[in-house]
Amino acid sequence: MPDFIGFDSSYEKAEMVLFGAPFDGTVSFRPGARFAPEAIRKDSWGLETYSPYQDEDLETYGLSDAGDLELPFGNTAKALDMIERHVRSIVRDGKIPFMVGGEHLVTYPAVKALREKHEDICVVHFDAHADLRDEYLGEKLSHATVMRRVWETIGDGRIYQYGIRSGLRGEFEWAKRHTFLRKFSLEGFNEDCRAIGDRPVYLTVDMDVLDPSAFPGTGTPEPGGISFNELLGAIDSAGGLNVVGADVVELSPHYDQSGISTAAACKTIREMTLAILRKK
Amino acid sequence: MPDFIGFDSSYEKAEMVLFGAPFDGTVSFRPGARFAPEAIRKDSWGLETYSPYQDEDLETYGLSDAGDLELPFGNTAKALDMIERHVRSIVRDGKIPFMVGGEHLVTYPAVKALREKHEDICVVHFDAHADLRDEYLGEKLSHATVMRRVWETIGDGRIYQYGIRSGLRGEFEWAKRHTFLRKFSLEGFNEDCRAIGDRPVYLTVDMDVLDPSAFPGTGTPEPGGISFNELLGAIDSAGGLNVVGADVVELSPHYDQSGISTAAACKTIREMTLAILRKK
Amino acid sequence: MPDFIGFDSSYEKAEMVLFGAPFDGTVSFRPGARFAPEAIRKDSWGLETYSPYQDEDLETYGLSDAGDLELPFGNTAKALDMIERHVRSIVRDGKIPFMVGGEHLVTYPAVKALREKHEDICVVHFDAHADLRDEYLGEKLSHATVMRRVWETIGDGRIYQYGIRSGLRGEFEWAKRHTFLRKFSLEGFNEDCRAIGDRPVYLTVDMDVLDPSAFPGTGTPEPGGISFNELLGAIDSAGGLNVVGADVVELSPHYDQSGISTAAACKTIREMTLAILRKK
Amino acid sequence: MPDFIGFDSSYEKAEMVLFGAPFDGTVSFRPGARFAPEAIRKDSWGLETYSPYQDEDLETYGLSDAGDLELPFGNTAKALDMIERHVRSIVRDGKIPFMVGGEHLVTYPAVKALREKHEDICVVHFDAHADLRDEYLGEKLSHATVMRRVWETIGDGRIYQYGIRSGLRGEFEWAKRHTFLRKFSLEGFNEDCRAIGDRPVYLTVDMDVLDPSAFPGTGTPEPGGISFNELLGAIDSAGGLNVVGADVVELSPHYDQSGISTAAACKTIREMTLAILRKK
Amino acid sequence: MPDFIGFDSSYEKAEMVLFGAPFDGTVSFRPGARFAPEAIRKDSWGLETYSPYQDEDLETYGLSDAGDLELPFGNTAKALDMIERHVRSIVRDGKIPFMVGGEHLVTYPAVKALREKHEDICVVHFDAHADLRDEYLGEKLSHATVMRRVWETIGDGRIYQYGIRSGLRGEFEWAKRHTFLRKFSLEGFNEDCRAIGDRPVYLTVDMDVLDPSAFPGTGTPEPGGISFNELLGAIDSAGGLNVVGADVVELSPHYDQSGISTAAACKTIREMTLAILRKK
Amino acid sequence: MPDFIGFDSSYEKAEMVLFGAPFDGTVSFRPGARFAPEAIRKDSWGLETYSPYQDEDLETYGLSDAGDLELPFGNTAKALDMIERHVRSIVRDGKIPFMVGGEHLVTYPAVKALREKHEDICVVHFDAHADLRDEYLGEKLSHATVMRRVWETIGDGRIYQYGIRSGLRGEFEWAKRHTFLRKFSLEGFNEDCRAIGDRPVYLTVDMDVLDPSAFPGTGTPEPGGISFNELLGAIDSAGGLNVVGADVVELSPHYDQSGISTAAACKTIREMTLAILRKK
Repeated sequence: MPDFIGFDSSYEKAEMVLFGAPFDGTVSFRPGARFAPEAIRKDSWGLETYSPYQDEDLETYGLSDAGDLELPFGNTAKALDMIERHVRSIVRDGKIPFMVGGEHLVTYPAVKALREKHEDICVVHFDAHADLRDEYLGEKLSHATVMRRVWETIGDGRIYQYGIRSGLRGEFEWAKRHTFLRKFSLEGFNEDCRAIGDRPVYLTVDMDVLDPSAFPGTGTPEPGGISFNELLGAIDSAGGLNVVGADVVELSPHYDQSGISTAAACKTIREMTLAILRKK
Repeated sequence: MPDFIGFDSSYEKAEMVLFGAPFDGTVSFRPGARFAPEAIRKDSWGLETYSPYQDEDLETYGLSDAGDLELPFGNTAKALDMIERHVRSIVRDGKIPFMVGGEHLVTYPAVKALREKHEDICVVHFDAHADLRDEYLGEKLSHATVMRRVWETIGDGRIYQYGIRSGLRGEFEWAKRHTFLRKFSLEGFNEDCRAIGDRPVYLTVDMDVLDPSAFPGTGTPEPGGISFNELLGAIDSAGGLNVVGADVVELSPHYDQSGISTAAACKTIREMTLAILRKK
Repeated sequence: MPDFIGFDSSYEKAEMVLFGAPFDGTVSFRPGARFAPEAIRKDSWGLETYSPYQDEDLETYGLSDAGDLELPFGNTAKALDMIERHVRSIVRDGKIPFMVGGEHLVTYPAVKALREKHEDICVVHFDAHADLRDEYLGEKLSHATVMRRVWETIGDGRIYQYGIRSGLRGEFEWAKRHTFLRKFSLEGFNEDCRAIGDRPVYLTVDMDVLDPSAFPGTGTPEPGGISFNELLGAIDSAGGLNVVGADVVELSPHYDQSGISTAAACKTIREMTLAILRKK
Repeated sequence: MPDFIGFDSSYEKAEMVLFGAPFDGTVSFRPGARFAPEAIRKDSWGLETYSPYQDEDLETYGLSDAGDLELPFGNTAKALDMIERHVRSIVRDGKIPFMVGGEHLVTYPAVKALREKHEDICVVHFDAHADLRDEYLGEKLSHATVMRRVWETIGDGRIYQYGIRSGLRGEFEWAKRHTFLRKFSLEGFNEDCRAIGDRPVYLTVDMDVLDPSAFPGTGTPEPGGISFNELLGAIDSAGGLNVVGADVVELSPHYDQSGISTAAACKTIREMTLAILRKK
Repeated sequence: MPDFIGFDSSYEKAEMVLFGAPFDGTVSFRPGARFAPEAIRKDSWGLETYSPYQDEDLETYGLSDAGDLELPFGNTAKALDMIERHVRSIVRDGKIPFMVGGEHLVTYPAVKALREKHEDICVVHFDAHADLRDEYLGEKLSHATVMRRVWETIGDGRIYQYGIRSGLRGEFEWAKRHTFLRKFSLEGFNEDCRAIGDRPVYLTVDMDVLDPSAFPGTGTPEPGGISFNELLGAIDSAGGLNVVGADVVELSPHYDQSGISTAAACKTIREMTLAILRKK
Repeated sequence: MPDFIGFDSSYEKAEMVLFGAPFDGTVSFRPGARFAPEAIRKDSWGLETYSPYQDEDLETYGLSDAGDLELPFGNTAKALDMIERHVRSIVRDGKIPFMVGGEHLVTYPAVKALREKHEDICVVHFDAHADLRDEYLGEKLSHATVMRRVWETIGDGRIYQYGIRSGLRGEFEWAKRHTFLRKFSLEGFNEDCRAIGDRPVYLTVDMDVLDPSAFPGTGTPEPGGISFNELLGAIDSAGGLNVVGADVVELSPHYDQSGISTAAACKTIREMTLAILRKK
């Protein structure tokens, strides 16, 4: 498999290490997020390394692509454990992990690994869905429960959620007491950035925060989302945060034969990378 | 076939009765609206019953799904007659009919049936196309003539049209004398709602009022439409009207393999249902 | 093949002559622009000849469809030469050429032919990509170099670029000295129209200036583009210019099975045609 | 629309006249046969006019393509009447009609028109389905009843059926008394040709007689059919019959994106044309 | 969801009980077998209940469709356990279970449950792949190891394999000592039937035993398989066996948009059902 | 990009060197053969290295994958020249070249390069099309003329053609005097092998020799071809020849979303490789 464009440094020289977590084992409705890392790497070569938005270039930074984890099929606990150990090792080597999902559940082990080093870690979460259920179809580990599991790890008042437009009434109620949840749009993110300040941040972008018109290739498309330019604006703002880990999840490329969803994921990764490292 | 999510009351207990009218017999360009009711019911299970927009839940109301009419193939007059009789019987039972098309021509028999009970009925019409021709390809009964037939039934000054961006020059001219037609967007709908007041309203949403980016799965995509959030706003406003019947038409699911069009139709149905019943 | 709707005048009576240049020989990533003219003509019959935006009708004007050039496969220089000669002959007959690509490289011979008659010709260029490289993969003639070749033909300060959101850092630097390049949007176009004044203009619309949500069917989709209504607005403004030739390029219809990209190209051609001739 | 390849004679000089009957109004399961004539004409240009099987060339004969009938949508009786009148007029002019469907019901009016001139006409029928029901979903005119209607027109012992592998038990029972029906394959066709002798024959080929592997693009694929080479063999045999009219029906091109079904239909038309005229 | 056509008896009156096992958790290459039961039930309505091959009709027998098991996502052991318990309960009620997969691993718990009642059970296995590995990607429970697990359950000389054309050299070696494996085709099956005699048989049909031309919709298409008519012949022969349970697995409907793979699975189920019950 | 499965030796140790020639510049009807090498390498990982047909394993041999040539777009002569030089260098190093096209024109430079070393080289050609035109659309270098160009290089009586079922009458006439052409099937190949004897052979397999049911993913599908098992038989026979170079061409993977065409190409490459080296 080719590297993601511009991620051609050796591991040793890298500030940031990208890797794929091709896991979609708990997806109920439309599987296929496992194919995202491969599709993203391939189509990244249709992208330039230079961003006219930030006037920055991937070639300026030390970026390495560590390939995909070889996760077992049909064994969720083992797969999550492998992700956790991989992130831990990247963090131990002093590098920033950038994970390409896979379904959203992969965020949980990544945050667990980062929490060991960064006790006061916050999670910034862009998504259409609250993902705050305690169980889903009888399972604790699910794409629909991931932020609840994350909350169990990092505690109250540390999860910031944006763009949420779907969930049970109970999830929205629960969020009022435990997370900062902003409905429908990214409004308020800039203010929240000031509140977050210098605390370490894990930035998780469920691409379905975008409107399905801009991102049809996902498991549960939810109409009424944000535009790509709104997402770009928020990423630019996130450049002011102290991001210690990040991911992009829930691309399911087979559901979008036009390829525009994969293109959106590629460009999101480029812009996030530049925003995160620009600060340093 | 499964029920539409949340429409699981018995017919007897229902305030609103949803049914499918899988008819696309007069579609000239790209048929397939006949597959919409089935696709919508199936994909509705990817939707929550709770709306964070209105803070309402389908489970609060008496909602029944009466399944699909078994319409004959190749016999337009007979199919329309069956729809008319079905709507008449729902209305007679004191319930609100919610029809899932099918092509737009199905609106005509539904309005005819409702007109019997509600003499001063108005029709609120969201669409990309004026549908005001007197004939199309030599036929009086066509998706392109449906609003003209509706006008023959309910008369001048009772049809309110929004988002119209395609038609013959003659249709736009004719509309000036016989309907309230607003071009391109939903602007003015809120004012018109005040003018409509308490009169009974039939609300017909041709989903192609949306921009094709948000709703590619339709027979005649017409670029330059409204966004899904604009549609949501209008539905919320329509909640202030006295809606006595409604439909959602012109989804042709096979033209959109990503499924975002079906998802948009499902969410539109949920939001319309909640807005209509919220008022009562 | 049928004519483009409304382009049914004889060549002799035509003010404007539309023709297809089904060439995609230098496309590296996703070929298929060669199929655009055929797809556009066919789907144009789903469009009305009347524009409610401009309150104008194609039937009012003398419009002819000259069919497609039969370009050789695998021989770029010969293909470009055939285009140049065809445009020259249309111009010599006192008509306005409207070319339907094909990849963007076809613009180069068209401008060369027009430059012979209009020495002070300007080029107005809507695109996602700067297309200003000097070489691409070792070739001077490429879709990625076309505006550089055009610049060699018409010189500094005559190319106006809008919507550009992708390119090498070097292309953006180069543009500062040689073209008027506006990033990301169409902002500033109205002012520039005043600066252009009465000078003859070639208007080239790479449809990928649109956001991929509105135009997924293209070789290199680039998220973050403009909406269809923004494009309509700019076309209306361009109606104030002295347009002596135009093209619409880079539709690759096979990548969009929903057909919304082809519909967007058809409507763009109708609106450009009416805006260009309205002025005269 | 282009002519079918090789069918470029004027109507006056033609021995055979091809036309399209883009009707699929009674199709219940998967519509789309209406798109077949257009797809067939377009892809026929990927075919040679020369047949190495028969060592014959379309260019040797007088062949004309009369285009498509403009059939009304949603009005079955009127559509069938138009077909009947068109076939009658071709027959009156002393030419052989070759109809390209459309669904199988179009065969009925064609046989009716030919029966007027050829009282002892036989029908040779290749198909996966018996099509012998008296009614289908309450309708007498249906793709599933067409051979029963044909039988009402021409009587007992005149319909020869091959390849039939689907039907009600009752259809197979009925056939024993009224038609010559051979199950599963084309075995016995050569013998039957001798029995048919010089009587006038209408040859109707429902392409779904082919195995779905060779012809996936059809409304009701029925596994276990014949191979393309077996069909070629039978067509060659049919060259010994006195064929006075023919059709090819039930291609539904949208269900086969690879295009192999359309290619099979094109080649079938070429081989049938050459076999029919070779004899004369 | 509708029943499979003809399976409309109550559970109590049924001789055979069909159910879906929508599991594809260990599929590595192309998932999607989970969607097979739903696709099969829906498209079964394009099939007749009558078989002209066997002159038998599903309506003659007591057949019940028990719907789909609701299997957990991401928990293989639990899913297999649910299948085993379900089969056990059907067997205990004196009925024949007919399972619709899902991936091939679902066969393992079904055989385990049947083995409890039928100590000398044999397994007849049609497949392109040997499925005899001891482990696959480190896992014991996998679609690639299923026949090895079955062998551990029922022992040497009880598995009869046909059509096998892919595997490691080691699998073919191992088979020589432990199973009866026939390569490439179904040759020898009739003789083997005589050897099996009256012993109870579990019949498992991995649909990829068919050539990919007849069955493209599967996870790992393997060219060079048998034709549908060859499969029909073998099913007819299997009618002479004492079949106590059966399954059809590995349809992955999304990979075949033409639907011919689903049609093949439906017809296979009908013919297997009739052959199994015909004997009794 | 990954290697083709089993081709993991170093170049130095290789007996055979596989490389991709992703060229489709002269394809007129449906381009996309340029994507074949990438698709083939990726899907080769769904194949085993072991062949139960030949009881041979790729791992036994020294096989290297040299990746793809980076061919210029839009410059046919230069692309062919690069292929010729690449083959020459492989031959000079004493290895057997195995080229993966691309369109069929790539065979021409490969034969030219091999002819330098092997004066009496013969070409064995499996194809649906004769490819013997002198010109196509005015060009000498075309997929439709490739065997004519090869004939100019190696002369009369050295080209053996099988499976040919499409061409101009003139091509078949010409072949009678200059090549050994067998129509429709592979019959006669075994005898011809004896006639060829020990002479060096270039084996070129245009995959469209297969019936479109087995190989839909190609530019010009031609119904009536051979089955995959017939091709396997011929490859086995070719194992008795002295093959000094080989290619597999004309897979166009985008036209077959099921992937069975790519699977067929992969298995063909494996079997050809084993047959060619088995002999040595």
